[in-house]
Amino acid sequence: MADGSSTVHARALLQQCLHAHLQVRPADGDAAAQWVEIQRGLVIYVCFFKGAEKELLPKMVNTLLNVKLSETENGKHVSILDLPGDVLIIPQATLGGRVKGKNMQYHANSGKEEGLELYSQFVSLCEKALAANSKCAEAGVAVAHGTYGNRQVLKLDTNGPYTHLIEF
Amino acid sequence: MADGSSTVHARALLQQCLHAHLQVRPADGDAAAQWVEIQRGLVIYVCFFKGAEKELLPKMVNTLLNVKLSETENGKHVSILDLPGDVLIIPQATLGGRVKGKNMQYHANSGKEEGLELYSQFVSLCEKALAANSKCAEAGVAVAHGTYGNRQVLKLDTNGPYTHLIEF
Repeated sequence: MADGSSTVHARALLQQCLHAHLQVRPADGDAAAQWVEIQRGLVIYVCFFKGAEKELLPKMVNTLLNVKLSETENGKHVSILDLPGDVLIIPQATLGGRVKGKNMQYHANSGKEEGLELYSQFVSLCEKALAANSKCAEAGVAVAHGTYGNRQVLKLDTNGPYTHLIEF
Repeated sequence: MADGSSTVHARALLQQCLHAHLQVRPADGDAAAQWVEIQRGLVIYVCFFKGAEKELLPKMVNTLLNVKLSETENGKHVSILDLPGDVLIIPQATLGGRVKGKNMQYHANSGKEEGLELYSQFVSLCEKALAANSKCAEAGVAVAHGTYGNRQVLKLDTNGPYTHLIEF
């Protein structure tokens, strides 16, 4: 059995990918939809709960970018910074849901504004971390991210998503 | 903030898809890799913890196949049985990991044999549930599943994965 943690402020789901495409702006009249794309890297779906504070973010970024879940060509696992690889951050408030009967309830989720603020800062901190890392900067890997509040239309190609859940 | 549950015996991650391809047998010499494929439906990644017992499975199946997370063409959400849609079950023991520093630990995971037994029964119960549902039988939707213990090479096409976590 797994022990539950007492208070969860944020939830991150990690998947490894070869490529991922995420729609960041839906089609609108004559304007085509806009997409971002990453190559080999890490997809981070993130959700914030009520009570999450910005002081939590540096710890989240540090953990998620340094955890050794990215597979190298010889089968070893290293951090995404060491791979080095792209990062795609997807806002996924649905991860905060709790099942009740046939429905999900999102009572514990952060409010929309707070969630946007935390999400934006989280993205920004990840961007800074990759930019400050010489291996990443040399390799030209980057952070892409979804538009908060939109439908996160995602296409994912993996060599095994190696899905992990990390709570903060 | 979200309250942690006291004892988690199983963890399921749900994503909605338009199409999904999952490798069930890797290439071997001259033999090409084998894949299963689903059309519009529900992807269930599943992990069992130590202490999970088969008595838990009917409840899991009932919850996961009846929770209203599948989007109809007019934007409503219904269960996968009511959509009706395909189901792809992916064994994902990595979901049981707990972060410690830069590594994940899987101490709470079920043993390999117990996990295989529970996984196999879970798949079988889901297959039975779809076969017994007249709407599903008429529509010809089906359950596909990954090979326990293999690398779960997955390609996923979504209109938004609408990712949810349900623990048992």
